Amino acid sequence: MSIPVPSNCMSIDDLSIGMRKEKTYTIEHEDAVQFSKMSGDWNPAHHDEDYAAQSIFKQRVAHGMFSVIQFSGILGMDLPGLGTLWLKQSVEFLRPAFFGNQYRAVVEVLAINKENNTVTFSTECFDQEGNKIITGEAVVKPIPAKLKAKTN
Amino acid sequence: MSIPVPSNCMSIDDLSIGMRKEKTYTIEHEDAVQFSKMSGDWNPAHHDEDYAAQSIFKQRVAHGMFSVIQFSGILGMDLPGLGTLWLKQSVEFLRPAFFGNQYRAVVEVLAINKENNTVTFSTECFDQEGNKIITGEAVVKPIPAKLKAKTN
Repeated sequence: MSIPVPSNCMSIDDLSIGMRKEKTYTIEHEDAVQFSKMSGDWNPAHHDEDYAAQSIFKQRVAHGMFSVIQFSGILGMDLPGLGTLWLKQSVEFLRPAFFGNQYRAVVEVLAINKENNTVTFSTECFDQEGNKIITGEAVVKPIPAKLKAKTN
Repeated sequence: MSIPVPSNCMSIDDLSIGMRKEKTYTIEHEDAVQFSKMSGDWNPAHHDEDYAAQSIFKQRVAHGMFSVIQFSGILGMDLPGLGTLWLKQSVEFLRPAFFGNQYRAVVEVLAINKENNTVTFSTECFDQEGNKIITGEAVVKPIPAKLKAKTN
């Protein structure tokens, strides 16, 4: 298997407030099956069309955390990228995500603390109409500048 | 495919402070491959043994969010179970999780707000030695009591 490589490896010196990265993603029901296998969450809201038709969302919904794990992809691969340690994440689920629709995960640098080498990002997801479905913040430790210098 | 069914369906009237539920889980490298496919996070810390040997953890580590999604399983299936809406989650990654080890995810009722039908849980994971690797809190909306009565 050929493994995708990170596009970036940014230390805190490479980051500035307002830098952002986004990715689009869709969620198919097959993804929810995989997610259920890994998490143990087989709630029929994700799998049973008859049950879901009676729910407040009127159809099956994706697991909320499926959107949140997209931030893992952006933070670990692109911004800041290689060497990033994820320290904290807060998340609020505002609206459901449905199968087959296109969503957008966006991270943006909110605050930089050079003293303890931590960076705070806003972490948000949007649906096709631009409605925010997820909001929250991440705190990460980018690769230490000294370590990056040694890696290059 | 036979789909596991929730073990509980508790409304706020069925919950009390201190109620808890735990599950054990392990993470194999194959799980990390699936997780990378879904999240886009192919960071070599999870996949490349040579790279990981040079890292601060000295070996490959699981994605931190893999532990967090175990809470999805407990909250959606067991406590409170069927009909639960996950509103918020906070998480702090304290230590890494390694492949093949056994971990324990634990949720416990911290606060109950009957006025707006929300319940706050502590959400924590521990390693085999009892060290806390994940800490945080979840806020959920259990199935409304009226809806549960109609379902029975």
